[in-house]
Amino acid sequence: MKSEFSFQVRWGDTDAAGIVFYPNFYKWMDDATHNYLAIIGYPSSKLFAEHQIGVPLLEANCMFKRPLLFEDQVVVESFVEELRNKVFKIKHEFKKEGQMVAEGYEVRAWTSFAGKPKAQPIPNYIRELMVSQVEILEG
Amino acid sequence: MKSEFSFQVRWGDTDAAGIVFYPNFYKWMDDATHNYLAIIGYPSSKLFAEHQIGVPLLEANCMFKRPLLFEDQVVVESFVEELRNKVFKIKHEFKKEGQMVAEGYEVRAWTSFAGKPKAQPIPNYIRELMVSQVEILEG
Amino acid sequence: MKSEFSFQVRWGDTDAAGIVFYPNFYKWMDDATHNYLAIIGYPSSKLFAEHQIGVPLLEANCMFKRPLLFEDQVVVESFVEELRNKVFKIKHEFKKEGQMVAEGYEVRAWTSFAGKPKAQPIPNYIRELMVSQVEILEG
Amino acid sequence: MKSEFSFQVRWGDTDAAGIVFYPNFYKWMDDATHNYLAIIGYPSSKLFAEHQIGVPLLEANCMFKRPLLFEDQVVVESFVEELRNKVFKIKHEFKKEGQMVAEGYEVRAWTSFAGKPKAQPIPNYIRELMVSQVEILEG
Repeated sequence: MKSEFSFQVRWGDTDAAGIVFYPNFYKWMDDATHNYLAIIGYPSSKLFAEHQIGVPLLEANCMFKRPLLFEDQVVVESFVEELRNKVFKIKHEFKKEGQMVAEGYEVRAWTSFAGKPKAQPIPNYIRELMVSQVEILEG
Repeated sequence: MKSEFSFQVRWGDTDAAGIVFYPNFYKWMDDATHNYLAIIGYPSSKLFAEHQIGVPLLEANCMFKRPLLFEDQVVVESFVEELRNKVFKIKHEFKKEGQMVAEGYEVRAWTSFAGKPKAQPIPNYIRELMVSQVEILEG
Repeated sequence: MKSEFSFQVRWGDTDAAGIVFYPNFYKWMDDATHNYLAIIGYPSSKLFAEHQIGVPLLEANCMFKRPLLFEDQVVVESFVEELRNKVFKIKHEFKKEGQMVAEGYEVRAWTSFAGKPKAQPIPNYIRELMVSQVEILEG
Repeated sequence: MKSEFSFQVRWGDTDAAGIVFYPNFYKWMDDATHNYLAIIGYPSSKLFAEHQIGVPLLEANCMFKRPLLFEDQVVVESFVEELRNKVFKIKHEFKKEGQMVAEGYEVRAWTSFAGKPKAQPIPNYIRELMVSQVEILEG
């Protein structure tokens, strides 16, 4: 199973070249990760409010295959590709009418914002959910 | 005296019609207000960190006279137009090469974020600075 | 009938005060207007591609009643409140769990982008759709 | 010589965790590239208006070392790291008080927007300027 996040390109996402301004892809990857966390039962609002946990970025990458235009319908498929002690790497594939338009990843640290921000080991109950996602995905 | 905030239109500020996407004018009004507060000696970072004070919006308005294009150089002139007990109205005039391109205002409440957000009377030392701005402006 | 546009507040919509950064309300009003045009059968992509028509802003206003938070579910109800020769005023009401959180309007000019941008009379087939919206709304 | 682009973190750049929302780093890389092109004498507005040339992205990457906060003063140093026939890779280093806070790169294609967008060989007069930047940088 991959989590899916759908959106439509908005007018304000475009630039004067008539195509999507590229930093928006990173906003959508961020949205897709928050969506992924919600789908495994730990929406980031809850993580932040109840556990003072956030998932700030260590790295983000995106490769752009085809431009997106105003009103395009897009689906982002996301899954955890790599799981380290305090860090996870989540892959995002952008598809329009089944065709890949961009693919990216984010490397994020499981971080406590109680006091000075500090990376924490990803708890087992989260790891299992992330791993089970991957297994279901591949199963 | 009016406080001035200068900026250049960035590529990402444009949309597929080739002109600035209008919500950006509100970002610039927000920037101009933060700049105004810094200029009177109370940058909002300091207000927030030391006094848990923010200045959330009650209303914002902008009238658009001429489109802005990529790389345009713009100056925003800002001054407090109206000063009530817990609320101030700040006017923003956008000028390009001396010509008005847009004019707007924000109505903001002096608000404590210690606990549940709650409007507070604007302290006298702030009022005097704001009023003195107006007087100098008109003087 | 009012057109409705639904969205969920995204992480990137918030600011360091923990609430929505206010210029985002204008992005959502813009989205809601594009949605309104699509619902009456004239999506702005089609207007722009086939008729070189855009609907740039003359004025936009919003009054903020309650802050929005990350993950809030919001509905924007939109309808044309005033219809002049080349200009229309569209009202937007933001509701969260049925409660008004903000209300705003945009004044937009029916504008040809074939050559130098120039306001045009709103065609009758559009006026009728907009008026019929209003009549159905009140009927 | 490296081209330099300076900015101050704005309130709207932050998110509810109190730090900069990460997609903004890509906006700043985009700004830094436009600034770089302007500095070598070919501002992208001119490239687009006179030659219908844009420089859309093939890939963008950023590694985040330290969070940025509201009002931080930042300098981005940019230089072309790799120069292929139709493609260039530009490196961006974000520094705050001399300390690296993030480093990223963009891979961009020299693209004609006259008709269907199509990558073009980077003209020699541009290559020489980019290379000379590198040579001066290393010289």
